[in-house]
Amino acid sequence: MHIVAWALGGHPARPAEDPSPTHHSSLATIHFLSVLVLVVLMWLAPAWAAPDTGPGPVSGGLTDVAGIKLGHYTLDQRPTGCTVVLVEDGAVAGVDVRGSAPGTRETDLLRPTGLVDQVHAVVLAGGSAFGLAAASGVVQYLEERGIGFVTPTATVPIVPAAILYDLGVGDASVRPTAECGYRAARAATAGPVVEGNVGAGAGATVGKLAGAGRAMKSGLGSASISLASGLTVAALVAVNAVGDIIDPHTNQVVAGLRSEDGTALADSRRLLRSAGPTQARSAENTTLGVVATNARLTKVGATKLAQMAHDGFARAISPVHTPYDGDTIFALATGTHQPAGTPQAALLQIGALAAEVMAEAIVRAGRAAVGIPGYPASRDLAPADSPPE
Amino acid sequence: MHIVAWALGGHPARPAEDPSPTHHSSLATIHFLSVLVLVVLMWLAPAWAAPDTGPGPVSGGLTDVAGIKLGHYTLDQRPTGCTVVLVEDGAVAGVDVRGSAPGTRETDLLRPTGLVDQVHAVVLAGGSAFGLAAASGVVQYLEERGIGFVTPTATVPIVPAAILYDLGVGDASVRPTAECGYRAARAATAGPVVEGNVGAGAGATVGKLAGAGRAMKSGLGSASISLASGLTVAALVAVNAVGDIIDPHTNQVVAGLRSEDGTALADSRRLLRSAGPTQARSAENTTLGVVATNARLTKVGATKLAQMAHDGFARAISPVHTPYDGDTIFALATGTHQPAGTPQAALLQIGALAAEVMAEAIVRAGRAAVGIPGYPASRDLAPADSPPE
Repeated sequence: MHIVAWALGGHPARPAEDPSPTHHSSLATIHFLSVLVLVVLMWLAPAWAAPDTGPGPVSGGLTDVAGIKLGHYTLDQRPTGCTVVLVEDGAVAGVDVRGSAPGTRETDLLRPTGLVDQVHAVVLAGGSAFGLAAASGVVQYLEERGIGFVTPTATVPIVPAAILYDLGVGDASVRPTAECGYRAARAATAGPVVEGNVGAGAGATVGKLAGAGRAMKSGLGSASISLASGLTVAALVAVNAVGDIIDPHTNQVVAGLRSEDGTALADSRRLLRSAGPTQARSAENTTLGVVATNARLTKVGATKLAQMAHDGFARAISPVHTPYDGDTIFALATGTHQPAGTPQAALLQIGALAAEVMAEAIVRAGRAAVGIPGYPASRDLAPADSPPE
Repeated sequence: MHIVAWALGGHPARPAEDPSPTHHSSLATIHFLSVLVLVVLMWLAPAWAAPDTGPGPVSGGLTDVAGIKLGHYTLDQRPTGCTVVLVEDGAVAGVDVRGSAPGTRETDLLRPTGLVDQVHAVVLAGGSAFGLAAASGVVQYLEERGIGFVTPTATVPIVPAAILYDLGVGDASVRPTAECGYRAARAATAGPVVEGNVGAGAGATVGKLAGAGRAMKSGLGSASISLASGLTVAALVAVNAVGDIIDPHTNQVVAGLRSEDGTALADSRRLLRSAGPTQARSAENTTLGVVATNARLTKVGATKLAQMAHDGFARAISPVHTPYDGDTIFALATGTHQPAGTPQAALLQIGALAAEVMAEAIVRAGRAAVGIPGYPASRDLAPADSPPE
């Protein structure tokens, strides 16, 4: 309250008796000014009162990691699509599946005991298990360019993939196909990441604990951080969680379960503290992510990186990793940057930053989404800092 | 700003010309009062400005789950000890190890494919791998009472255990022994949980990214939530992380890395965004937790519960699950409460609540800790809402 004391101290002592109009007028002027100063200070007060909420947000996107190209293909028949992360020179990769209802392809070879330790693309797609077909199109795209794991008789592209369930948004017979994957690969660039209702995030929704009727539109987001050391860590995510998107800087809901009248955020954490069972259903959810770094990592290191990145899911989605989510994160290490220190110390830093950029990418996915019929987006509702009750 | 407008509206219009002393005095009085009102409003402003930070904290502790007894034994030669969770009637159990440097016992039998699905106690201990001996004392305690898995020739107590590394705090030759475990089991009660520098948390510290010299004392914490449905979910944790304890309601550091002069919180997340390698070392860390519920769960369900509880670690510790932590969570389901709805819907709710009570228990561990030479505690430092820079 130093500033209040200063403002009060600046106020002149009341003159005992002075009828002169001039003095009177000057007292009123000072009075007016001192009130004005206090009003300005009150406007500023929330800024002072705002607690330090940790390091600020990061920006950028997955393509800030050199060697990575990103392409989306979004279907126009209904909101769904696929997103392809291309690493034509190969990248060491790992995966961690923490949801209970995943749909994946080529994840077994990513186990640390597996032979292959380089992948050439990762595909995220809508369309539930049908959407895994998109990876076949990317395999074809890479084969045409002679990119893959060299065997005596063929070069075999290694393309892990994971899907999310968006069949409830529009006509369920429309799903990403192999052609969708091929087109996304052909469209891939190293330019800025397009976020929101695109690719694997086109049909993504959040806040489904009370069924689709109170859900909101989510989408695809990305974020990155680059340090003076030359290290870059980036994340990409398509958020289709049963839970809500939470901004970990404020603990407030960005998008998720709506109130019964649909006009405000309700906060799934509150619903979960009530006694009733939820109406969330299996196979309607799943958040898919990719973290990438330019650091040199082993396959085991990339696996650990994927594991630590799930802490970003935990911080920016609630609830998450539920029985009804198939939450999966792939990790890619392009290996052009040799971190200082021991491999474990480097991994600690890279993994911690991956969790942070992943959380940021999730918040961005929520903020970038645009509402569609039946699923308003964050931007359509009252600000989350209006308490929902 | 309605209230500001109201305060200003309550201020009288300036009289044009009135030399009367009485009026002058009354103007000054009103002036004084209006300034007073504004000052009071400014004091209140931070409360209004405070954003909604989600559902409030929970209280209670692990023993709020009927059938669970908790006992600590704390050594007096140096700060270390062990904590025993007794479930004499048995509980379905699961485990999830997410840190890279764990020290455990009887965790393989907890795999979903394992035969045994009931445990009779869980032991958390300091002393690194040496501390696993504490479990032997608990096995002895239970055998003397005829409690265990019945085989033709003996009744075998099932006592999973995990340790944390606190050998750097005091004389490393002092470690929890089998006798320590026996005494903790004998001391176990269903009463309120003693928190802070006790049992497995006696030697626990946090904020070790820049080495022990800038670390802080942490300890043991517990929390629980009970719903109108009769469901109870509770957590117990000994926080010995390389990272900091974060209050997820505010994103502020509760205890962790200190500034170079040791007088303030520095925030490990900021250090990790600088270019330098960290001085954290392997095997000096590990956070150990137990979540328990009165719900009836399968062994697979208990495993999923342990997995989801790690999201509480992610929300209240940063960084966490690092290569230098052996983060492990056990889940116990006593089975006296039959949840409504499908098993998966129940598990979603129980797992989500477990993550929340675990985060709360971690914050409580930080707040309950008492400083020891070289390791000040949260209560010894300036409040975390003073920005560290």
